[in-house]
Amino acid sequence: MKQSDIFNADTLAAIEKEIDALLTRPEAPVAAGLDRIYKAMRYSALAGGKRLRPYLTVLAADLFKVPREHSVRAGAAIELIHCYSLIHDDLPAMDNSDLRRGRPTSHIEFDDATAVLAGDALLTEAFHVLADPATHPDPEVRTKLVRELAHAAGPMGMVGGQMMDILAETGMAEAEDITLIQSLKTGALIAVSCRFGGLLAQASPAEIDALDRYATDIGLAFQITDDLLDVSGSAEQTGKPTGQDAMNSKPTFVDLLGEEGAREKAAALIEDAKQALSVFTPGQQPLAGIADFILSRQL
Amino acid sequence: MKQSDIFNADTLAAIEKEIDALLTRPEAPVAAGLDRIYKAMRYSALAGGKRLRPYLTVLAADLFKVPREHSVRAGAAIELIHCYSLIHDDLPAMDNSDLRRGRPTSHIEFDDATAVLAGDALLTEAFHVLADPATHPDPEVRTKLVRELAHAAGPMGMVGGQMMDILAETGMAEAEDITLIQSLKTGALIAVSCRFGGLLAQASPAEIDALDRYATDIGLAFQITDDLLDVSGSAEQTGKPTGQDAMNSKPTFVDLLGEEGAREKAAALIEDAKQALSVFTPGQQPLAGIADFILSRQL
Repeated sequence: MKQSDIFNADTLAAIEKEIDALLTRPEAPVAAGLDRIYKAMRYSALAGGKRLRPYLTVLAADLFKVPREHSVRAGAAIELIHCYSLIHDDLPAMDNSDLRRGRPTSHIEFDDATAVLAGDALLTEAFHVLADPATHPDPEVRTKLVRELAHAAGPMGMVGGQMMDILAETGMAEAEDITLIQSLKTGALIAVSCRFGGLLAQASPAEIDALDRYATDIGLAFQITDDLLDVSGSAEQTGKPTGQDAMNSKPTFVDLLGEEGAREKAAALIEDAKQALSVFTPGQQPLAGIADFILSRQL
Repeated sequence: MKQSDIFNADTLAAIEKEIDALLTRPEAPVAAGLDRIYKAMRYSALAGGKRLRPYLTVLAADLFKVPREHSVRAGAAIELIHCYSLIHDDLPAMDNSDLRRGRPTSHIEFDDATAVLAGDALLTEAFHVLADPATHPDPEVRTKLVRELAHAAGPMGMVGGQMMDILAETGMAEAEDITLIQSLKTGALIAVSCRFGGLLAQASPAEIDALDRYATDIGLAFQITDDLLDVSGSAEQTGKPTGQDAMNSKPTFVDLLGEEGAREKAAALIEDAKQALSVFTPGQQPLAGIADFILSRQL
């Protein structure tokens, strides 16, 4: 299965266009510093990512026929959070990465201070976007989006997971913690991407729970297949050097479950994810396709 | 005029208690990383700041008899943003400060990675707090708080001002930019602190404009008196080493206006700030007291 068979080019283009529009600097006031911060935000946020998170928001919202103008915008806000997290993760103080998607990382292209500030700005802007009436006419819905995204990205979500991950690399955490690390560091943001579809539609709690279960399953499966690719894949398959986890003595799901166990776990999760979608029959096919695609990555 | 004559101790205690409550870590799940991120957030946010910003929110809200439970909470969210900005400003990549309020800064007490993440977490948490129904029963009001704070803290506010400030220190900006730098870097957050009082009360645009004018005036006056103290004050008066600006070749209002001109400008701003409050007669005295206090700092 190829990525281009699963991800619709028009939808991806609409997401790109929205992120571009959201990060357009107001003309006044004229100041080199303001030019620079927008340049740095755009450098990292318009660097050709997969856009998995906003794409999930759009597909989940499509289940309820939410207008695309709302789902694309809300998904783009989540992508701003994802991009900020990559900039800060790449900093010398964190993973100290010089390259991301084949280009110099923000602190290499600009400098450390600009990278810190560009991340801060993208994070802040995400909430500015969500609270704006253009995201949804009902302010109750908008406050729910803000709360859920802040929770998923904050100390009991992505940031907390990143803190755990850093401690794990220094041997201060157990391999058994990796499920929790994954669920906070990457799972929470993927889950909220799908939940957003239901929140925008003011869907029932049962429907939002089904989206959450689907997203939690595919998020964990994605990490497991990533770990499997790191062990057995080629750089060509993964787009990055393999064998990195062992080099960093980073605990992985392959350490925890073994290669065969990890493969079985991923398959079971994808099965469960598709099962969760059954409440949306018919119409669940695009989300089911994403689930299958994730599993196929390690075949 | 002493600080303790202007700032009510019970109000300050209520603000401290709120920040403490907002940064209390949920018990589950058990993980060293989550303990650490909360410890770092609390270390910086409960370090005995002046709490000027939430104090202004409470006083502005008092004009309209907004319940203190709402104004203290909304003001505390702004203080979380202020605290995050101090942590990131102190980083080696930025101002590289080892001490803040007589204690080691976050990256010295913990490490650089933890300081980056603690700042990110405080920033994110601020929006989580504001979007919560406990801040105000009307979701329309809550979305306005989120939008205004995100705007004031983001690339066209505080973060943009910080970026300009960094460029100015390297000689890439003109002294004439310092009014814009101040208005973005510190003025925007002080202005939104006062505006929050009106937003919580669903006050008229004219009333919110009056609060904005007052806050913009005192914010600029505060920076001018800070610059004056740096030139002529003692370390005892300022609580920090003086003469720092000249050493950092940082442009100041004293460079721009001269000492006498800076004094006159500050006095005129405080006069204008009190004039702006006249629409709130009677009841404006506490806010007028803050304005007088700011001017008295450099006498």
